[in-house]
Amino acid sequence: MIRFTLVGAGRIGKIHAENIARHPQATLAYVADANSDAAQSLASRWSAKAISLDDAVSGRDVDAVLIASSTDTHADWIERCAAAGKAVFCEKPLDLDIERATRCLHVAQRAGVRLYLGFNRRYDPSFMRLKREIVAGTIGRLETLHIISRDPAPPPVDYIKRSGGLFRDMMIHDLDMARWLLAAEPVEVFARGWAVDAAIGAAGDVDTAMVMLRTADGKLCQIANSRRCAFGYDQRIEAFGATGMVRADNHTATSVTVAATAGFTTEPALPFFLERYAAAYRLELEDFIAALGNKRVELADGEDGRRALILADAAQRSLTTGAAISLA
Amino acid sequence: MIRFTLVGAGRIGKIHAENIARHPQATLAYVADANSDAAQSLASRWSAKAISLDDAVSGRDVDAVLIASSTDTHADWIERCAAAGKAVFCEKPLDLDIERATRCLHVAQRAGVRLYLGFNRRYDPSFMRLKREIVAGTIGRLETLHIISRDPAPPPVDYIKRSGGLFRDMMIHDLDMARWLLAAEPVEVFARGWAVDAAIGAAGDVDTAMVMLRTADGKLCQIANSRRCAFGYDQRIEAFGATGMVRADNHTATSVTVAATAGFTTEPALPFFLERYAAAYRLELEDFIAALGNKRVELADGEDGRRALILADAAQRSLTTGAAISLA
Amino acid sequence: MIRFTLVGAGRIGKIHAENIARHPQATLAYVADANSDAAQSLASRWSAKAISLDDAVSGRDVDAVLIASSTDTHADWIERCAAAGKAVFCEKPLDLDIERATRCLHVAQRAGVRLYLGFNRRYDPSFMRLKREIVAGTIGRLETLHIISRDPAPPPVDYIKRSGGLFRDMMIHDLDMARWLLAAEPVEVFARGWAVDAAIGAAGDVDTAMVMLRTADGKLCQIANSRRCAFGYDQRIEAFGATGMVRADNHTATSVTVAATAGFTTEPALPFFLERYAAAYRLELEDFIAALGNKRVELADGEDGRRALILADAAQRSLTTGAAISLA
Amino acid sequence: MIRFTLVGAGRIGKIHAENIARHPQATLAYVADANSDAAQSLASRWSAKAISLDDAVSGRDVDAVLIASSTDTHADWIERCAAAGKAVFCEKPLDLDIERATRCLHVAQRAGVRLYLGFNRRYDPSFMRLKREIVAGTIGRLETLHIISRDPAPPPVDYIKRSGGLFRDMMIHDLDMARWLLAAEPVEVFARGWAVDAAIGAAGDVDTAMVMLRTADGKLCQIANSRRCAFGYDQRIEAFGATGMVRADNHTATSVTVAATAGFTTEPALPFFLERYAAAYRLELEDFIAALGNKRVELADGEDGRRALILADAAQRSLTTGAAISLA
Repeated sequence: MIRFTLVGAGRIGKIHAENIARHPQATLAYVADANSDAAQSLASRWSAKAISLDDAVSGRDVDAVLIASSTDTHADWIERCAAAGKAVFCEKPLDLDIERATRCLHVAQRAGVRLYLGFNRRYDPSFMRLKREIVAGTIGRLETLHIISRDPAPPPVDYIKRSGGLFRDMMIHDLDMARWLLAAEPVEVFARGWAVDAAIGAAGDVDTAMVMLRTADGKLCQIANSRRCAFGYDQRIEAFGATGMVRADNHTATSVTVAATAGFTTEPALPFFLERYAAAYRLELEDFIAALGNKRVELADGEDGRRALILADAAQRSLTTGAAISLA
Repeated sequence: MIRFTLVGAGRIGKIHAENIARHPQATLAYVADANSDAAQSLASRWSAKAISLDDAVSGRDVDAVLIASSTDTHADWIERCAAAGKAVFCEKPLDLDIERATRCLHVAQRAGVRLYLGFNRRYDPSFMRLKREIVAGTIGRLETLHIISRDPAPPPVDYIKRSGGLFRDMMIHDLDMARWLLAAEPVEVFARGWAVDAAIGAAGDVDTAMVMLRTADGKLCQIANSRRCAFGYDQRIEAFGATGMVRADNHTATSVTVAATAGFTTEPALPFFLERYAAAYRLELEDFIAALGNKRVELADGEDGRRALILADAAQRSLTTGAAISLA
Repeated sequence: MIRFTLVGAGRIGKIHAENIARHPQATLAYVADANSDAAQSLASRWSAKAISLDDAVSGRDVDAVLIASSTDTHADWIERCAAAGKAVFCEKPLDLDIERATRCLHVAQRAGVRLYLGFNRRYDPSFMRLKREIVAGTIGRLETLHIISRDPAPPPVDYIKRSGGLFRDMMIHDLDMARWLLAAEPVEVFARGWAVDAAIGAAGDVDTAMVMLRTADGKLCQIANSRRCAFGYDQRIEAFGATGMVRADNHTATSVTVAATAGFTTEPALPFFLERYAAAYRLELEDFIAALGNKRVELADGEDGRRALILADAAQRSLTTGAAISLA
Repeated sequence: MIRFTLVGAGRIGKIHAENIARHPQATLAYVADANSDAAQSLASRWSAKAISLDDAVSGRDVDAVLIASSTDTHADWIERCAAAGKAVFCEKPLDLDIERATRCLHVAQRAGVRLYLGFNRRYDPSFMRLKREIVAGTIGRLETLHIISRDPAPPPVDYIKRSGGLFRDMMIHDLDMARWLLAAEPVEVFARGWAVDAAIGAAGDVDTAMVMLRTADGKLCQIANSRRCAFGYDQRIEAFGATGMVRADNHTATSVTVAATAGFTTEPALPFFLERYAAAYRLELEDFIAALGNKRVELADGEDGRRALILADAAQRSLTTGAAISLA
């Protein structure tokens, strides 16, 4: 039985708490949060114990820490877990600053603790099958990759200001998917963006962006992001290869079609990540627990997190400077 | 070069006129219609000659007659063509009365003229492929057949009164498709119907109907008809077999999808038979011309027309008497 | 907190056990099964207590009994629960014999206990939405209903022999859906069937069947069943009305499409009812618990179970006698 | 009646010949081709007269010239038509060299003759509807555009060598679509490409390419091209806006789906441009004839041809230099 401390009792923390509690080989032992009421409430929901942040990683009876606190605390928590010898599952990103991210990785590495990043999309059943088909050779040699990823509505401008920008906050998921599916490192990043929403522009960020990636062996990838999407959480990936194509389309709540004079209407995409990636959150936790038993998994590790951040930084720099950024 | 006389310059006649005129091995020589202005106008459109009804089948320089006149004249025209030794392509049905239909078939048979019926759906590219897949064994042994066929809007009540009823006028197409796809004769017919539109009910007919057919070897078929359909001309067939299923769905004018808050909307079905079966009208004429050269074709012949009418009659009787009608 | 006894620790019992155990307002208190090892094993999985069949409904600390034992014991259990004043959620059917079913309903009624039947499809999210659209008037007045329901593979012939036949064992679900969606009682049943599988035929049953239903106000419904389906658990419903159509299609495990020379391939339907109706089993239990608090629900009650059985009996009689069966 | 000379009796010439001949307001008067047998054969098929290249534009009885000869002769023919005062419909591109293209445009302009370019995709019914929806405001303000365009198989390397490269030969169609749908001039072009096929790489060209375009008002567009596609002629466009999305998907020959153990398979995309754009070739000709009567049309004119070529040149330069090319 793997005993967990959960750090962070917010929206994502709650999902992880439930998935830990329901896992047959895991126990949610402790919950810590800067807001002790939130910690208490979540802990009691799953028969865990609320503890203070100071005590969060100290307990001997804890095997693993799930970090779902605010981004700016991730690196510190990783280092504390490393010091305490706890396995870590950390929500993305490691940090918004590549130097800080790299430093905490070194600490974790030296301590020899396992460190995984919550790039949940690797565990979406549709994307997993897409990956399997690529690996199985269904489409022959992969040639191009096409990722569309749109949130239903932008977060508050206050959040945007602290987010590190669209590339580090939102597209980082797609950049990880690109690396994972391309199975090769991009050596060049070209990015363009635009703020449709003037308030987001005033905050120095974009809400609409396109990126083109190129790998050393010539594979090309295009990513399109938008912070707003009228028809739900638009999450699609298409991989094109020498002998075919495989794509994962949006998910819907039901299989209902309504026909009327105007035509045939099917449902919009699921509202947002909590619905679309519910299975993914569960499956990534299962694999984290399996990984502690040394099973080979698709989980992103610390280095994956660092490389995704490097791509996001390059995209930001491409947008700022206008040039394509070489990473070779 | 096959020289044609067209009898009937109405809506269907016009389609056939164009398809004859554009066919490289055919010539539209004459057009006859009770309305001589209509005949004249259509003839001049395609460089043909308008002639009187009396002269329609007498010309020595004519090889084939295409009968697209009103239903109650079909049997007479067939007999006149038989007497004149002309090949006949006749719009469905032979006649509304099975005795009359049978009689004219005997005349044609004794005269040794070729007689084909315009069950155009056999030439719809989607239904043709469905038939090919069944014959090719793609779905294993055929077990059940499901036909949905709905017109966009009912014809005028005056037409309904002269139509012979929904089964002989509308479902006869589906009954022919059933025979063609089942490749076996139905031995039992059960029908139920209902007039949603009170005026149609007052005219002694139904506008909504379901039929169940059974063949001697146990295959089952269900047909659903409606005279009204909000989302276009609904024409679908599904064949289920031991190892799979094949279905032909509706056709649309474009491949466009519009996504909005309410979901993803594709187009309604094409408006009516002129659009949906445009290719079918062309292809059945090509096969008629090929048949005159003794190529084996999928065209319905006189006997197919008679058997479809027997099924329609049985459906009508089932509706009237309430009983399943045995044809074994 | 509603305390449950579960009777029956088989495949369906296990699903209900988990759903009860995970429900915030419910507790799985006891599990009983003729096989005491099975009862013990399932009970310990969810921290419940295994008890003997004799003690199953006697406990004062139990509010409700979930009956998931073999069909031939349902009526007895219902009567025992009635005597003990326990609310009952019983898997379908009440009994294979309409007299026995009616008798146990009377017992339950006189005792004033609540009795619901597990027609789980009423809780499939797609069918629920289809029902909502009909009720909301999206398609205008409902005119025809089309149900296709195919199992992936036939059960063992031994099961078939004890099953009461396809109509009472399998189509009874579709007959309940028809009543629920038509919101009117069928007054006529016509059925035809056929045993593709000779062993099933030898056992006196069919594996392929079609039924046509008619309501007093003229609505028509067609149902097609097969015990075998190459492409998964085929569960589709289409409702056609004056101003449109609404249909619920099959569900798939992922949204992946693979394109190759042969075309675009999407997934087969989910394998069987455990996958397709996983949400339905959870939601029907939630509604059962809500019903105990007097919330109005879509659950089938004892009378619904009796009426579905009457329709199944009529279908069987129609098949045997060849005639349409009037229920008016 | 508009009288036409057709220059070029090859594959595209044949399509135009038929569409001219069948148009009620047009006559195919003459056909000229360097291969006089080809000219003779095509002319006799449509009751036209074959003439020598020297005489092609001299006749007084000709109103318009349709240029479907090889690319390197387009500019010369345009200038000859200008000198003779004939309206011109020229297959794309004007010329592979922007200077030469610009020069011939000036000649046509000074002569005051009408000059249209055969960017046939503007007349594909699906793309026309997509354009109409954008213009009608269905998706709100257009924000991003996504074009995928893949040929089924690469042309011979000999053709590639004379083609001007993928951007000028193939993507030029997509660049025209981008300008037409964005309704704004791109001010920046970024391109990357790769030769999967070594022979194409040895010929100095790429067979796989991605381009990103940006307009002055911030709209972003991504284009992906491949010379090979296993599942047919892949032609898709998706336009994303503030309130929704509209996309045009591939076209198929039939609406048939086959279901088997592996899932549901629909047809591949139509094989190539002759099938996919059959309607577009007919409709663009109709609009050319309408344009001669001063109707406002969606046809690309000479200036559109020049601007598409500028974008193609910029893409080629971006690929060669590695930099984003500014056109502002």
